[in-house]
Amino acid sequence: MSASTVPPTLHWVGGLDGHLRLIDQTLLPLELREIDCRSVEDVWQAIRELKVRGAPAIGVAAAYGVCVGLQNVAAGSEAALFARLDEVTKHLATSRPTAVNLFWALDRMRRTAELHQGKGPRAILQSLLDEARAIEEEDRQMCRAIGRHGEKLLADGQGVLTHCNAGGLATADYGTALAVFFAAHEEGKRLHVFVDETRPLLQGARLTAWELAQRGIEATLICDSAAAQVMREGRVQAVVTGADRIAANGDTANKIGTYSVALAAQAHGIPFYVAAPTSTFDLSLDDGSAIPIEQRPGDEVASFAGRRTAPEGIAVYNPAFDVTPARLIRAIICERGVISPVTGEKIAAALQGG
Amino acid sequence: MSASTVPPTLHWVGGLDGHLRLIDQTLLPLELREIDCRSVEDVWQAIRELKVRGAPAIGVAAAYGVCVGLQNVAAGSEAALFARLDEVTKHLATSRPTAVNLFWALDRMRRTAELHQGKGPRAILQSLLDEARAIEEEDRQMCRAIGRHGEKLLADGQGVLTHCNAGGLATADYGTALAVFFAAHEEGKRLHVFVDETRPLLQGARLTAWELAQRGIEATLICDSAAAQVMREGRVQAVVTGADRIAANGDTANKIGTYSVALAAQAHGIPFYVAAPTSTFDLSLDDGSAIPIEQRPGDEVASFAGRRTAPEGIAVYNPAFDVTPARLIRAIICERGVISPVTGEKIAAALQGG
Repeated sequence: MSASTVPPTLHWVGGLDGHLRLIDQTLLPLELREIDCRSVEDVWQAIRELKVRGAPAIGVAAAYGVCVGLQNVAAGSEAALFARLDEVTKHLATSRPTAVNLFWALDRMRRTAELHQGKGPRAILQSLLDEARAIEEEDRQMCRAIGRHGEKLLADGQGVLTHCNAGGLATADYGTALAVFFAAHEEGKRLHVFVDETRPLLQGARLTAWELAQRGIEATLICDSAAAQVMREGRVQAVVTGADRIAANGDTANKIGTYSVALAAQAHGIPFYVAAPTSTFDLSLDDGSAIPIEQRPGDEVASFAGRRTAPEGIAVYNPAFDVTPARLIRAIICERGVISPVTGEKIAAALQGG
Repeated sequence: MSASTVPPTLHWVGGLDGHLRLIDQTLLPLELREIDCRSVEDVWQAIRELKVRGAPAIGVAAAYGVCVGLQNVAAGSEAALFARLDEVTKHLATSRPTAVNLFWALDRMRRTAELHQGKGPRAILQSLLDEARAIEEEDRQMCRAIGRHGEKLLADGQGVLTHCNAGGLATADYGTALAVFFAAHEEGKRLHVFVDETRPLLQGARLTAWELAQRGIEATLICDSAAAQVMREGRVQAVVTGADRIAANGDTANKIGTYSVALAAQAHGIPFYVAAPTSTFDLSLDDGSAIPIEQRPGDEVASFAGRRTAPEGIAVYNPAFDVTPARLIRAIICERGVISPVTGEKIAAALQGG
């Protein structure tokens, strides 16, 4: 399957009475299947169960989730629409706690509705669909801009390493961390990408490896625990990951294991880069200690495909994310440029400049 | 299942014409099944396929493997026995390359046969069986001594972390790294053990978690990539792992991921201990760069239980071991005591002292 034959990660089908269609990422790479989300509950479950995942894609999905959630009040009163909007955004906000893009998108949708207050339910719904489409389109532009800024940090012939999936499947276009690799590839730089498999849900093995293969980029899959050894062997010259939430001081929440990779990179003098849109910053949090970390079911670790791999009754600690302190991050690559060194001042300046 | 109802990890059944019986560890924790190894090929495969694993246990298995391999020449000439001994030891030496205990045990068996040269094949075979039993018994004593020396390094109420399985299933008794925990437990110290699942073959989830549960020690299973985060949260006060080979300067080969754990421990100021018998030292190697690292099939990473988890055709790098430099190791706990700081001089002194 080539990149051109793969449908978009998620997109809206039809007009005001349309619906959200997305690739069920839990089935990849064995099966490429799209599912249709026609209710807010469908969207909530798709996010919760990681059928759609990746901070930017979660934001886009939530925005469209607001649209499907309001369709059945389009014929009623504005008061009913705003009451329902409140319900829908509150519910979608409970789907996953860590990626701030979710809350950012829901806030933006709520503010859009308020801006169009008084124009009638149908016009408000249309403005919301337009806004969701704008979020999707901005996400697309964001990916390209991150790629352009980030690829300059890489050189031809380098080995690079990434953790989890911050690629096309995590966004509406071709990713954040992977956008950097894709843009470098487009510039003719040959890279060799080491892909952390990313336990427990194997987003690296299932999704990142799949995306790299489709685009013809050389890649090698490794166990997460082998990343330090691969660095020690001199095979890696840069690490790039995505982010789910970045605090005001640059502390970055990302998939569990990212912190471990950052420590190993530091020990080997390898630059560790975070690629994420400005919507990933949460300036309301001074530092990473305030970022809520999603705890996921122990069965994700203790079982595989319904088959038990650990003794019954064993306790499991399964945080979905960890926090990498700003001091371990050489630069944050966002759509506005490269923030380096990673300090509160630099971040504030970059975000104000937009 | 309680510890008392579990058969030994491996043992010899019968007399001179007996055979090696061992727990097939690839089936744990779902099934506890023993298999009988009646030929050198059976033993070779059991080691190769990790039915028996763990450096000390591999040594014991190889010693008994020599015995089964010579049974069919017991009635012939001594020359035929020595020719066969040569074949058998060379073949068993190819089963796995990293654990030096394998070569140590095979050497010891060869020297035993030479010592009894001229006494006739049957007497030589008896001396070999006696020697294999001695290796097994010494392994038992070694575990207890490591436990005694190591438990003094731990305090009541501590959180500890281990990687892979260096327990009863890796030895003829109750382990090396886990012996330290078991001995502390026997001394009334309450520990909470964080168990790295240990990709790709999940020896932590399958074997270590199982052993700890049997002995009633509190344990929590984590993904390997979560170890650094667990340390950052202040949950771990010491790390103890086993070893497959230790060079003259203290550089230590152990299961892939050990180096990553050692780096994380260093970053958090947590002592990192290696527990291993003196048979694990290889003074012929100046440092870890000379330790041969076993490369295992990529399918161990890219598939699970016959189900593909990564795209077909993706390259996989799957080293079974990595090397932790001596400077990251606070102490090596062996049956003769605690070697600290870990330097070539201290190691030489400890080994000469025996």
